[in-house]
This record gives sequence, C-alpha cells and structure tokens, in this order.
Amino acid sequence: MKIIADENMPNVSTLFSSIGEVSLTPGRSLSSEQIKDADILLVRSVTKVTATLLENSNIKFVGSATIGTDHIDLEYLSENDICFSSAPGCNADAVADYVFSALSHLYLNKKLEWLNKRIGIIGHGNVGKTVYQRFSALGCDVVAYDPFVESDSVRLVSLDEVLNCDIICLHAPLTKTGLHPTYKMLGKEQLQKLKPNTTLISAGRGGVVCEDSLLIRHDELGGKLNLVWDVWKSEPHINTALLDKVDLATPHIAGYSKQGREKGTWMVYLALCKFLNLNPKLDYSKAISQGNITEMSLNKDANLHEAIARAVLAIYDISRDDTRLRRKYRNAPSFETFDWLRKHYVERDEFNTCIATQTSYQDELNAIGFKHLNT
Amino acid sequence: MKIIADENMPNVSTLFSSIGEVSLTPGRSLSSEQIKDADILLVRSVTKVTATLLENSNIKFVGSATIGTDHIDLEYLSENDICFSSAPGCNADAVADYVFSALSHLYLNKKLEWLNKRIGIIGHGNVGKTVYQRFSALGCDVVAYDPFVESDSVRLVSLDEVLNCDIICLHAPLTKTGLHPTYKMLGKEQLQKLKPNTTLISAGRGGVVCEDSLLIRHDELGGKLNLVWDVWKSEPHINTALLDKVDLATPHIAGYSKQGREKGTWMVYLALCKFLNLNPKLDYSKAISQGNITEMSLNKDANLHEAIARAVLAIYDISRDDTRLRRKYRNAPSFETFDWLRKHYVERDEFNTCIATQTSYQDELNAIGFKHLNT
Ligand SMILES: NC(=O)c1ccc[n+]([C@@H]2O[C@H](COP(=O)([O-])OP(=O)(O)OC[C@H]3O[C@@H](n4cnc5c(N)ncnc54)[C@H](O)[C@@H]3O)[C@@H](O)[C@H]2O)c1
Ligand SMILES: NC(=O)c1ccc[n+]([C@@H]2O[C@H](COP(=O)([O-])OP(=O)(O)OC[C@H]3O[C@@H](n4cnc5c(N)ncnc54)[C@H](O)[C@@H]3O)[C@@H](O)[C@H]2O)c1
Repeated sequence: MKIIADENMPNVSTLFSSIGEVSLTPGRSLSSEQIKDADILLVRSVTKVTATLLENSNIKFVGSATIGTDHIDLEYLSENDICFSSAPGCNADAVADYVFSALSHLYLNKKLEWLNKRIGIIGHGNVGKTVYQRFSALGCDVVAYDPFVESDSVRLVSLDEVLNCDIICLHAPLTKTGLHPTYKMLGKEQLQKLKPNTTLISAGRGGVVCEDSLLIRHDELGGKLNLVWDVWKSEPHINTALLDKVDLATPHIAGYSKQGREKGTWMVYLALCKFLNLNPKLDYSKAISQGNITEMSLNKDANLHEAIARAVLAIYDISRDDTRLRRKYRNAPSFETFDWLRKHYVERDEFNTCIATQTSYQDELNAIGFKHLNT
Repeated sequence: MKIIADENMPNVSTLFSSIGEVSLTPGRSLSSEQIKDADILLVRSVTKVTATLLENSNIKFVGSATIGTDHIDLEYLSENDICFSSAPGCNADAVADYVFSALSHLYLNKKLEWLNKRIGIIGHGNVGKTVYQRFSALGCDVVAYDPFVESDSVRLVSLDEVLNCDIICLHAPLTKTGLHPTYKMLGKEQLQKLKPNTTLISAGRGGVVCEDSLLIRHDELGGKLNLVWDVWKSEPHINTALLDKVDLATPHIAGYSKQGREKGTWMVYLALCKFLNLNPKLDYSKAISQGNITEMSLNKDANLHEAIARAVLAIYDISRDDTRLRRKYRNAPSFETFDWLRKHYVERDEFNTCIATQTSYQDELNAIGFKHLNT
C-alpha cells in the first residue's frame, strides 16, 4: 500500500506507516506525476484535489486533515468511487479555547464579568456546539441561533435574540446562497441592535459581519463594544480601521492548536482504517501530543472569574497572538503578513492537555475544557 | 501606639495591627492635621514626607514601602531624630521576572535563543544583581558594568564590553551629576556600538537611553534590534515613534508584582519591629500572598528554551501588558494613559510563588526564580 502525504500533516508518518509505505511531499506543489503509483492520498487545505491531479492515478482514498472541503472536487471523487474523508470538528476545542482566552483577557483587562451575562452563539455546528456546551456546563445563560438545527437540548432562539445578548460568539460559515446566507448577515440593521458594552467574538468566517457597518456602530456607541477579531472580511487583507478598534486581533488562528492539528491526522487515520477494514494499531495517546503544562495547582482563595482567567491564560494567552500580529503589521503592513503569521504560528496547547488540581472550581474548569483528574 | 498608613499599602492592617492601632488613609491627600496624634507614619511614593507635614507631630518612625526615597526629606528626618526605613530591593524579583518574560516572548516569537548568548547588565544594584545571579545560575555567559561596584564574585567589565553583548539589560538609576551620570549614558556614540540583532531591555529608568539616537540606530540597522521598553525618557509621555519600533512596550511596571508590593510592607514591618525592639509576631507566609498557580508539572520532552518559555509565560506573560498599553493608547493617546495603566495594573505573581515539577530542568527553573520543591 503506497501512501503519499503532505509533509506538514503532524504525526503522519507515525500513524500511517502502520498501514503502508508513506512518502512525504510538500502539499503545495503536489503533481499527478508524484501520485501515479500511490493508493492513498493525504492532504491539507493547500492541495487542490482535482480531476487533473487524480486522472492518471490509482488513488482509492483521499483524506484531508482539515474541516473544510473547498479544495476537494467531491463530485469527481464520488463519480470515480474514490473514498473521501476529512476531519470535521478537529479544531472545535481549539476555537472554544480561543473564546475563553478572549473572555479571560477581557475580565482581567476590562473587568468584564462574563459568567453572569447572557451569551449568544451564532452557528451551532461543531464549533458552536462545543462553545455552547462549555458555557452550559458552567451554568451560564446561553442561547444559540442556527436556522438549520432542530434540537430539544439546545436553547435555540431567533437571530434578534442573540443580537440582544451581552456576549456574542460567531461560529457560522460563509455562505452566499441558500435560504439563510451568512454573508453580511450582521449588517447595518442587525448591528444597530447591539447594546452598549456588547462583546463580539468573531472566529467563524470573515464577511459574516459587515465591517464598515460595524465601524459606524462602534462610533455611535462611543467605542463601547468589546471586539475580538480572528476572521476578517478581506483576508489576507486586514481592515486597518477595524484593527485600531478591536480589543484583540488575531490572524485566523482560533483553531490553531497543536492537538487540533493532530486530531485532524488522527481522524483521517481512523477513517482509513475503517475503509481498509483494519483495526487501528495505534491509539489516541500516540497520536496526540502532551501539553507543555500537564498539571497545575490553583490557589484556593481566588474567585471563580479570577481562577478561570489565570488557569486559561496560563495555557493560552490570546494577547501573545495580538502582540505578535500588531508587531508584525507595524513592520510589514502588507497582506502577505497575514499568511506569514499563520504559517509561523507559535504553537499552543489545548486546555484538555492540562489537569487543574487543588482548586475549589474543579467542575467549572472541567466545564471549560480542562482535563479531568481521573482520565 | 498610633500608626497612620496609606490605605494602598498591601497587608498593612494585618501586619501592623500586631504592633499598634492602625488607621488607614489615602496617601495622596495626607495632611499634618491627620497625623498629629500618630507615632508611626507609613507611606508609599505618592506621599511627600516634608517638614511641613511632620512639624506638629510626634512621629518617631517613617516607613516607606518603596525602593525610592525621592519623596522623603531625609535631612529633616535625621535632624529631628526620626527613624526612617524604606524597602530597597523589594521589587528586584519582579523586574527579573519581567526580563525573563521578555526573553521568553522573544524566543517564542522571534526564535531568539538567548541561553547561549552573551548577556550584559548595566547597574549592579538590587535589581541588576538579581538578574545577574539568575543568568549566572543558569550557566549563561553574563557580565556586568557598574562603576561603583567592586567585587570578585562578579564579572565586571567596561561599558563598551557590555555594549558588545547580545542581550543588554539596563538596571541603572537616573543620575545627572557625579562621576558617572547615567542621563543619556547610552547616547549616539554608545548606541553605534550595538551589533545587529542586539536585544535591549530597558527596565531601569527612562532617560538613560537617548531615545532619538536609538531611533536613528534602529533605522541604520534596518530594524534589527529587539527592544523591550518599560521606562521612557519623558514619562508619563511616551515617544510614539519609539512605541512603533519596540517589540514590547509596557508602562513602567517591570517591578509591579503582587508579592513585590507586599515585600515592601513586610520590610518596613521588620524595620519597625527592630526599631521598637519587638519580636515580629507575624511571619513571612502571613505577609506574602500565595500565587494563582502554586505548582505546575511540565512536559519532560520540551527543550530547555521551550520549557523555560512555557513555564515563565504561564506565570507572567509580558504580552498581556503590551496588548493593554497599545489598546489604551489607541483609545486615549494622552499622557494620562500612562499613569492610568500603572494605577489599574493587572496584578501578577512572581515566579517564586510557583513550584515547577516533573521537568528535566528543575535546576534551571529554580535558577530563574521558580520556587524550590523543598521550601
Ligand atoms: N477561526 C478559525 O480558526 C476557525 C476554526 C474552525 C472553524 N472555523 C470556521 O467556523 C465556522 C464553523 O465551523 P464548524 O466546524 O462549526 O462548521 P460546521 O459546518 O460544523 O457548523 C456550521 C454551522 O453553522 C450553521 N449555519 C449555517 N448558516 C447559518 C446561518 N445563516 N445562521 C446561523 N448558523 C448558520 C450550520 O447550520 C452549522 O450548524 C466555519 O466556517 C469554519 O470555517 C474557523
Ligand atoms: N521599571 C521598574 O518598574 C523598576 C523597578 C525597580 C527598579 N527600577 C529602577 O531601576 C534602577 C535600579 O534599581 P535598584 O533597586 O537596583 O537600585 P540600586 O540603587 O540598588 O542599584 C542601582 C545600581 O546602579 C549603579 N549605577 C549608578 N550609576 C551607574 C552608572 N553610571 N553605570 C552603571 N551603573 C550605575 C549603582 O552603583 C547601583 O549599584 C532604579 O533607578 C530603580 O528606580 C525600575
């Protein structure tokens, strides 16, 4: 079995050499010549998997260690009986960590007491669901808007109701067609509904918020909006007027945890094992890295907001990414900076790599995603 | 025994009510009327302790929970047999933490491998000595310049030799007279000697570096200087051209740890006990707060640079202060912002409040200031 894989898929050799002969290659320049003898193709989002690429090959399985499938000609694959598998949800924990790091930062820096506020989530997919569950497990007043979801266990509300929340987390994809396109779904009219001091965390896709209207609304409210911006309308171009207004600016990295990337490879590995009817020889612990800080003891005297903020920021402090982005843009205010920052991202761990002990808030920290003591 | 104290001295009631009756008051507006019945006066740097303030009082002891004495009329005190005590060195650990947080940030963000570089320290007082000792305990190649210090146990060198180092830490005070005034001691000529890629950490006093000359040198070197700036020539005004160039900008807070401030109170408490010939009833552990993260286990697989960076940034991530300063300046680019930021500082813990366990680098982390396992 010949497996050809993007060299930037983490752990790909470790996992897949238990199945076949793995050769690694740069994903961007992959050619049909290179894959003509291969059976399995493993890619990330930088490789366009098209008819032209696959035509002269015997590829039977394509795996993409990413949540998106825009780079894959799914129609061609299905017409040609090529099995396809991606990694939906692999970075949901990473994005949820991002959200809680942002709130922790706002708590310490602006005294934003978010635990007792109303939280609204737009988009109840893999990411939105994870974020929802964490708030819900914390006992927060959380609601969600997703016109495509029906569920009894989720407090689904209208878009207007979410816009009236104190904290709004955006986790919808970018769609321009269909019944509920998301493109500029937060336009002038909707942004008008934001109350003063609303916190808006944009970590889904750029273009869902009309940035021009947001700037106007920000002015109207005398700057009284807390804005956390990971995805930008014209990426890799950044709206510099908006950059000046947001509390925290990051270059589309909300999902970039070390373990999230590894989970991508892992999910494709499991799918391939299933496709080949093999028992997975390797287990999760071999596939996913330990964190840098595997355990920490917290001071029992802290209040809950403080305890969460300190624990969260010890594992991932979002201001590192903000400082880095702004530093780089001061030096090189070019659109290439955006991709450079993503490519040279300083790896971070997920909360679930760390056990928090000796705290009065064990349950709350577990709710937020910290590792359970007994796992 | 009547004790009047600045209400912003941390722990002041806990400690001093074991000695006498403590009344708290805002330090800025302290009047001679308020202290006329008091025996002991405890201040911070916001209270000017002058003849006018003390004239009609019976104050026998003045304590200042700070390292500086600019706010105290020492001559008047000594002429009037009033005992005085301050807290030299109380924030030395905090500043040393700041230095290592800066280096950790530069390691993660710019791959600055500082452990094997030559490190030079200017000023070998309480702060400089602490920083020197940490590098030295780590096994680094460290030297110091201080024309007023003689010592066999320190590698003292010329200023030129320090300027030739890869990492330069500034911990000299601001002096305009004497044999070796520090005002603009790093001027055009001296800055010319900096090599490309030198790291300059300025956490002593503003004005020691000529900021205009630094900007010129920065340009000459094509921006190849790593600059970490805590103290500014025209504080509370900030040189905005320099703000744009520095990697990390903070508002004179290098010494602002929670425990550092508490050590200030503690040192004055010990001095007063001595003055009164009392045995201190309270011990250090009552006076100094626990940290938020009291213990952490590190991943054994990290390399030394990485392990240090992750441990250090978990306790104090300097980019939080950089993000905060730049955010505030975008909103309110006024000189008042500087003092606002200092007054509303987000408290941080010292490394010595945390034990790092399960690491291959126990000694190195202890060298940097983490708490020993067996203390
Ligand atoms: N910033 C990052 O680094 C990062 C990381 C992960 C995901 N994302 C993005 O976040 C988005 C969500 O990711 P996911 O993995 O949860 O995707 P998903 O496909 O699992 O979920 C998307 C959800 O959005 C809902 N949705 C669609 N149109 C909507 C509308 N008009 N209003 C409200 N909800 C709507 C869908 O019904 C679905 O439930 C994606 O666009 C993804 O690209 C960004
Ligand atoms: N950024 C902060 O938050 C922060 C915190 C603590 C201290 N400081 C400042 O840092 C400086 C050092 O603090 P400290 O507690 O170590 O003071 P200190 O008085 O203990 O030490 C100062 C040292 O500088 C030396 N020195 C004087 N002139 C010199 C010169 N021309 N060249 C080299 N060295 C010279 C002195 O000999 C002395 O050893 C002070 O100015 C203090 O105000 C700043």
